[in-house]
Amino acid sequence: MQDALLALTKYWTDRGCMMAQPFNTEVGAGTMNPATILRVLGPEPWRVAYVEPSVRPDDARYGENPNRMQMHTQFQVILKPDPGNPQEIYLASLEALGIDVRAHDIRFVEDNWASPALGAWGLGWEVWLDGLEITQFTYFQQAGGISLDPVSVEITYGIERILMALQGVTHFNDIAYAPGVSYGEVFGQSEYEMSRYYLDDADIDANRSLFETYAAEAERMIAQRLPVPAHSYVLKCSHVFNVLDARGAISTTERAQAFARMRGLAREVASLWMARREELGHPLGTGVPSAPAELLLPEVTEAPLAAPDEPASLLFEIGTEEMPPAEVTKTVEAVRSGVTDKLAATRLGHGEINVYGTPRRVVVTIDDVQPREPDAERTVKGPKVSAAYDETGEPTKALLGFARSNGVELEQLGTAWFGQNEHVVLTVTDIGRAAPDVLSGLLADVVSGLRSDKNMRWSDPSLSFTRPIRWLTALLGESVVPVRVSALTSNRNTRVHRTAEQPEVAVPSADGHLQFLASHGIVADPARRRAEIVETAQQLAEKAGGEIDVDAESDLIDEVTNLVEQPHALLGSFDPAYLELPEQVLTTVMRKHQRYLPVRRPDGTLLPNFVAVANGEIDEGLVRTGNEAVLRARYEDASFFWRADLGVAPEEFRSRLTQLTFEERIGSMAERADRIASVAVDLSSHLTMESGDRETLNRAAALAKFDLASHMVVELPSLAGVMAREYAARAGETEAVAQGLYDMELPRHTSDSLPVTLPGALLALAERFDLLMALFALGAKPTGSSDPFGLRRAALGVIRILRDRPELAEVTIDRGLAAAAERLRVQGVDVGDEAVAVAREFVLGRFEQQLRDEGVPVDFVTAVLPGAAAPGKAVDELAVLRQRAEDASFRELVAALQRIARILPDGTPAQLDMSRLREPAEMQLAEAVQALGDWSDGSVAAFADAGSAIIEPVNTFFDEVLVMAEDAGVRSARLGLLRTVLERSPASVDWSALDTALGQSSASSAPSAYTSPAASAS
Amino acid sequence: MQDALLALTKYWTDRGCMMAQPFNTEVGAGTMNPATILRVLGPEPWRVAYVEPSVRPDDARYGENPNRMQMHTQFQVILKPDPGNPQEIYLASLEALGIDVRAHDIRFVEDNWASPALGAWGLGWEVWLDGLEITQFTYFQQAGGISLDPVSVEITYGIERILMALQGVTHFNDIAYAPGVSYGEVFGQSEYEMSRYYLDDADIDANRSLFETYAAEAERMIAQRLPVPAHSYVLKCSHVFNVLDARGAISTTERAQAFARMRGLAREVASLWMARREELGHPLGTGVPSAPAELLLPEVTEAPLAAPDEPASLLFEIGTEEMPPAEVTKTVEAVRSGVTDKLAATRLGHGEINVYGTPRRVVVTIDDVQPREPDAERTVKGPKVSAAYDETGEPTKALLGFARSNGVELEQLGTAWFGQNEHVVLTVTDIGRAAPDVLSGLLADVVSGLRSDKNMRWSDPSLSFTRPIRWLTALLGESVVPVRVSALTSNRNTRVHRTAEQPEVAVPSADGHLQFLASHGIVADPARRRAEIVETAQQLAEKAGGEIDVDAESDLIDEVTNLVEQPHALLGSFDPAYLELPEQVLTTVMRKHQRYLPVRRPDGTLLPNFVAVANGEIDEGLVRTGNEAVLRARYEDASFFWRADLGVAPEEFRSRLTQLTFEERIGSMAERADRIASVAVDLSSHLTMESGDRETLNRAAALAKFDLASHMVVELPSLAGVMAREYAARAGETEAVAQGLYDMELPRHTSDSLPVTLPGALLALAERFDLLMALFALGAKPTGSSDPFGLRRAALGVIRILRDRPELAEVTIDRGLAAAAERLRVQGVDVGDEAVAVAREFVLGRFEQQLRDEGVPVDFVTAVLPGAAAPGKAVDELAVLRQRAEDASFRELVAALQRIARILPDGTPAQLDMSRLREPAEMQLAEAVQALGDWSDGSVAAFADAGSAIIEPVNTFFDEVLVMAEDAGVRSARLGLLRTVLERSPASVDWSALDTALGQSSASSAPSAYTSPAASAS
Repeated sequence: MQDALLALTKYWTDRGCMMAQPFNTEVGAGTMNPATILRVLGPEPWRVAYVEPSVRPDDARYGENPNRMQMHTQFQVILKPDPGNPQEIYLASLEALGIDVRAHDIRFVEDNWASPALGAWGLGWEVWLDGLEITQFTYFQQAGGISLDPVSVEITYGIERILMALQGVTHFNDIAYAPGVSYGEVFGQSEYEMSRYYLDDADIDANRSLFETYAAEAERMIAQRLPVPAHSYVLKCSHVFNVLDARGAISTTERAQAFARMRGLAREVASLWMARREELGHPLGTGVPSAPAELLLPEVTEAPLAAPDEPASLLFEIGTEEMPPAEVTKTVEAVRSGVTDKLAATRLGHGEINVYGTPRRVVVTIDDVQPREPDAERTVKGPKVSAAYDETGEPTKALLGFARSNGVELEQLGTAWFGQNEHVVLTVTDIGRAAPDVLSGLLADVVSGLRSDKNMRWSDPSLSFTRPIRWLTALLGESVVPVRVSALTSNRNTRVHRTAEQPEVAVPSADGHLQFLASHGIVADPARRRAEIVETAQQLAEKAGGEIDVDAESDLIDEVTNLVEQPHALLGSFDPAYLELPEQVLTTVMRKHQRYLPVRRPDGTLLPNFVAVANGEIDEGLVRTGNEAVLRARYEDASFFWRADLGVAPEEFRSRLTQLTFEERIGSMAERADRIASVAVDLSSHLTMESGDRETLNRAAALAKFDLASHMVVELPSLAGVMAREYAARAGETEAVAQGLYDMELPRHTSDSLPVTLPGALLALAERFDLLMALFALGAKPTGSSDPFGLRRAALGVIRILRDRPELAEVTIDRGLAAAAERLRVQGVDVGDEAVAVAREFVLGRFEQQLRDEGVPVDFVTAVLPGAAAPGKAVDELAVLRQRAEDASFRELVAALQRIARILPDGTPAQLDMSRLREPAEMQLAEAVQALGDWSDGSVAAFADAGSAIIEPVNTFFDEVLVMAEDAGVRSARLGLLRTVLERSPASVDWSALDTALGQSSASSAPSAYTSPAASAS
Repeated sequence: MQDALLALTKYWTDRGCMMAQPFNTEVGAGTMNPATILRVLGPEPWRVAYVEPSVRPDDARYGENPNRMQMHTQFQVILKPDPGNPQEIYLASLEALGIDVRAHDIRFVEDNWASPALGAWGLGWEVWLDGLEITQFTYFQQAGGISLDPVSVEITYGIERILMALQGVTHFNDIAYAPGVSYGEVFGQSEYEMSRYYLDDADIDANRSLFETYAAEAERMIAQRLPVPAHSYVLKCSHVFNVLDARGAISTTERAQAFARMRGLAREVASLWMARREELGHPLGTGVPSAPAELLLPEVTEAPLAAPDEPASLLFEIGTEEMPPAEVTKTVEAVRSGVTDKLAATRLGHGEINVYGTPRRVVVTIDDVQPREPDAERTVKGPKVSAAYDETGEPTKALLGFARSNGVELEQLGTAWFGQNEHVVLTVTDIGRAAPDVLSGLLADVVSGLRSDKNMRWSDPSLSFTRPIRWLTALLGESVVPVRVSALTSNRNTRVHRTAEQPEVAVPSADGHLQFLASHGIVADPARRRAEIVETAQQLAEKAGGEIDVDAESDLIDEVTNLVEQPHALLGSFDPAYLELPEQVLTTVMRKHQRYLPVRRPDGTLLPNFVAVANGEIDEGLVRTGNEAVLRARYEDASFFWRADLGVAPEEFRSRLTQLTFEERIGSMAERADRIASVAVDLSSHLTMESGDRETLNRAAALAKFDLASHMVVELPSLAGVMAREYAARAGETEAVAQGLYDMELPRHTSDSLPVTLPGALLALAERFDLLMALFALGAKPTGSSDPFGLRRAALGVIRILRDRPELAEVTIDRGLAAAAERLRVQGVDVGDEAVAVAREFVLGRFEQQLRDEGVPVDFVTAVLPGAAAPGKAVDELAVLRQRAEDASFRELVAALQRIARILPDGTPAQLDMSRLREPAEMQLAEAVQALGDWSDGSVAAFADAGSAIIEPVNTFFDEVLVMAEDAGVRSARLGLLRTVLERSPASVDWSALDTALGQSSASSAPSAYTSPAASAS
């Protein structure tokens, strides 16, 4: 291992890097060393390389886990500015380490790095060696909240991983560190002891006090304008925060607060460093432009290219560093529409446009591009003929001016009629441009217009895209089309595999470029790559006696397709013993971490195999071995957790929740679980449940959230619920209880499935009501993009579950929040009525937004809001309303109700005082109301039928009765009658809101229904 | 610089060292990295090399000082066990750095390292490159209070210093760090900012709290048996302690407490580490014996060497690594007496014995060693003849037994007379041993018996000496005398200069060995080396127009003589501008730091020159340049302080003393200075002083200790007082005030001079009375070898000053301590009477001890103790006593007084009641007493004369009067009379103590004087 460190040091110092030393306080990564995090700021050039023993208390495993340790060794390189070819330089460094880059599968897999604590982020990749992440490669974009100019390239080697792979050992302890000395012999004891400290023995109060002391010193040093000591204290803060976190002593709020504080400090340190460097006159110079001088765009002095003699094919290739898979597809589409639209805005004739994409290139081909645009005539309108010549027939000043301004003689002008007027006109012929001339600018615009969801900058002075654009190939037939964008100039060269003998090759002609690329091992067409992957993966799966579920894995296959330029599927296997692990554990690791396709038996069960898709020509045996080793390491990890967890009863895990802080003011996760259980049972009291369900609910409630204390969930939080189900079932709980515990966590995201059991649904609701009520009680409300506690997701979960289950109509949002509030008060949390109201408004607001997002017209949404606290019912009513809105009779009923609503002053009490009613129309209405009965709690559907009987009496009443009679008694009797009508209609609907909605949806069919007789209205 | 680090890394990893990383918390030296301080413990072998950026807050200089910085780069190597030739391996590493070890003067200069905070120490050297310390080379003996077995070799390169020398730059900022990047560009800002933190801005309370937190975590981890995290916290403690120290926030007590705490922790960590490694089964093995296997002593199977044919010279050379200069001389003496004595105990004849020594060898030559010891006859006494034969003349059992036990026949026996008895005897001839046989064991004993004041262990399994013994050369004539000691075996090879082409050469013959060594450039005879140095140095000084004050520099010349094997004096010069610095600054640096001889003009003033004494054949120009650069750097440092200090008025410095903590419970140094001033003035009230002296005293008192706040004294504490005098004089104070301030610090050590002015003496006394009283008030008392506050030195200072100045007779120790106590009480310090008594006892105890050490008989010492509070007077009285003790009349007087003292019961009051006296003898005595007058405050001399008149009356009284009369009144009158005699004799003498002293010194001359008449005694 020390040879590797020396080899890298030599490699990079030979390339102009300064050698630095690890920092003299604990850091989580080489990035935090001031040699990186401060030096990337500002204009001064900087090239540095150093070893950094990096401490991550959270990864402490007592030295038992073969791949994880509290201290690992990073080798860190900073190249500032980006030299333009950092990937190539990096690959050569792997060769210096003795890695045969041709035999191995080395890939750049999207990985965007961000450190909230440092206010820093960058875009780049994990570099994979046969599936193993060996390096973090980042274009550093921001540090301390300051955008970096120039951008730095940051290369971070994970030394232990590389060495384990190179030496073929399966536990880091077995790495040969130096001749005759193993890694374990050197670091083993420290690994164990520091793990003990970080996981078990660090004093929490002491470390909290250290955090405060460090932060205060950092603040004082910032005030003294000393960024260097300030930074050192920020790092110390960060380390003790990590210690506290590893000890499980950090609640969500504390985390947010600590991060905000550290980020604030980091920002101040960064600004201060920038300012101080400027005051010092930038000792290392500022003479380096954003891009090397030779890359700056030279003046274009050449004459426009001549048009070719005959139609020709166009090839345009935009070469990039590895784009994220999703961006490949999006970029292909963006280029396709860009080229198509821009060409359509010219007169250049052309045939079919095709656009293809791989991680490293977007290829545009256009058939039959015409040599030039045809010429076109165009008429320029001058003054009216009547104003062009005076009475003597001499040209007026207006005419002379027109001719002069167009640079023509009078005799070149003609006349033409425009409507009723004859004008002087000039007919101009626009000469068609030669194709290269058209394409040159058009293609440049396409490139400079490229954008992705998340853009970065690199050495180029003005481009910004998902990853650096490094070359442009533009050929019309066999000639280069000059395209210049920022620092890029097109030529006839393209780049093939970096490991090819000649990585850059000249393209002879635009024709047959896909075949040309194919001859260099590049499959440019994504559809073809995908098909190849599916076909070969399926063949490989069959060899193992299984198959790939292509439909289920569709997203993954799409992703893999855009991770390679030349798919090379290979079949790997793993120890069948790992199949004892829950399938979701196995597939989560395969898909999410490794992008491997699981192989299943025809009955759907997993085989101990996987298909990995490598890139290009590689040594298949070597790469398979590597990938298998990576998977084994990950499964070994999971197995360790699994076995450790199986030794612990769910009740025991449940009791350990007391040690997990949920939110410091709200208490531990155990208290939260207690509250959830209690709220779920409370909610169930509104329901009729089978006794089996009730038992299930009680049991599942008692175990609620227990798996959060399990190793597996601590490690893979996305398996919360999944592991609860697994562990509960294995501990002898009923299947229903196990499922209920799983259901409780559903839905985990917008497109996730919903609880399948009633007890599970109640627990899931209780879980979310508690979260919402607890956080709103503390005054936490999501703002903008910040929703650290996932309150929006919780609110939507409540709504989805309630919409999904009509039997939960009695479990309203009001009841849920009230129950949660009550339970929190029992625990001593101060929950004000105002907080309940705000929480209610927040949840209903989500529901309203959801309905709108589903395309429901705004007014229908508003109409059902009064009943929205029971979303299931509200949605049913909404459907009825929308259906009935087509029905003229219903519309008349609505109109009648709205007519009443409009005339009634606020606060009018309902009364049905027959003694004061005299007029026939009012008597008739009163009788109709009595016959109608009370539908205030009824459904729209039923009311719609029954209510039609009052339409005519209402309308007659308005036509014949003066509501606002002079006799106050009469007037109030009439108003009371009208109020009664409204009060007996379903309260879950705001009828007046429907005004516009029904008006719009039925404007043409029944406008008359909404015309009120002005005479009787006042 | 990075090339140098890489070269060293490569050099040492090629030699089997593991490469490690700097530690991830601030350390003051590479030693503190666990890769050293823990790994040197226990039996496991360990070879490691690493870079360690070492932080020393106290050395922070804002990056302004060209040679001093808060962070410097160490390159650390540990070789465990000692490979046997680490110096040679080290020298080759310098060559790997591109240093021509033949051209430069590279020397190993005694430097013993100890870290109280780590409970660690070792013996070794600073390695000098042309006078510049570039490496610390240590045989690590103890860590965490545990003796190391095996011993580790620790090599610590000071990288910046080496690079400055190699690159010929004068400021560390100018070191080329990497191509195109200077050291200053990389580290400059950090150097400034961290200096700001350490010197000005670190929050003292925050750092104190960190210290407590760290120490508590360390204690907790020790309790958890986790030495690794515990050690990390010990290091953090150490760093914040250093920060607090640099901020001037550490008082002497705090320092002692903190060191005790850290040392305690370090000890516990070390024991725990040892225990844990043992529990872990010593993963790196224990198979390495203390010495490499090939060095283990083979069985001696050879026959004893035959004696040579004729007398021959013996050569015996003990080869060592560089001994400390003082040890060279001592070892030569030890070997000389060892060889002489041991030879005397044999019968081997020999001529003159000569012993010579250099730093690397002790050479013994003995002329005319006889080939063998002569044979010798010896008589074994048997039974008496009368018991040897029975009546029949037959041999008895006794005789037979005697013959049998001596293995002889009866006929071999004879007889001989012993006194009155005739015995059977056996005459045995002891055959003389051959010379090699005698010498073999004798020389081995000499080697194994070598010891120095401070001994160390190395790879040898059983030897222990000041430095490793590496070879033995033993020749008798031309033959090797086999000498085996532990792992060493003699042969005929010796080692010459390490840089010689053949560093190890065979010695042809014992004869002419000194010439042989001289032919290889080694001057073995110290007298000759010294003479060469004096001669060449004087010649060089003359060339510069000056001379060396050989007498004044005698100690330094002695030291230099033993720092080289082949003196090579060279004349260097420095910028005459530095002569503006006080001479003591210049010479302190030259002598103490550089071992250069100052060159003076005939009038005694300094010339800007020096003589350095290099070793062996070197490139004189190169070495001169190097030495001049070192001196320049040191003078530049001193100049910086000097100039900075001159800009500050003494009053200003005096006011800054408030920022220096003296002792936290006693307050700041300013408060101490106030107290000293006040006590000095108080003491002066007992004296008659000229008004000029009084003014001087007042002024000097007002400025007392001001120079402690100056840069120069902070840097070179030994110049305290010296700088006060300089700065005061330059600030316009009178010469007397300046001298008084200087005097105040005298005596600084046992052989230092005393104050020359009266005001200075008073201040010096006050300084010491305050120190003593303050610390005793706190309960601090020196124990064993621990005297952190220098209380013994202070007490001795008081005594020496008071002995020196008879005019200070009224300034007694009692008054001084009382004044100091009173002044402390004014300040609010609680000073109990008990504390004053303890302090008094302590000081008087020192005086008593001093007198004994001066050879004063114990009883004289005891006799003058009553007056010891005025040591000057006491010493005068002592002289009189001792002189008078020779005088019979005085002895009679003493005897008379003692006779009285013996008979008087305790508590008898004095009275002279003439009315109750009847007997002539008692009347006569009473009259004599009246005539004597009161001498209780008088001197011994005067009393001795006057007192002789009472001898006879006293003796007569005892002969004729019964003291214990039956009449109580008479009895008490008689006792009162006797008491009056005693009370009128000088109270400063304990007459009864003189009993034995005078008895012994005059036992033969006047024993009768002490015989009392038993009859009259009761």
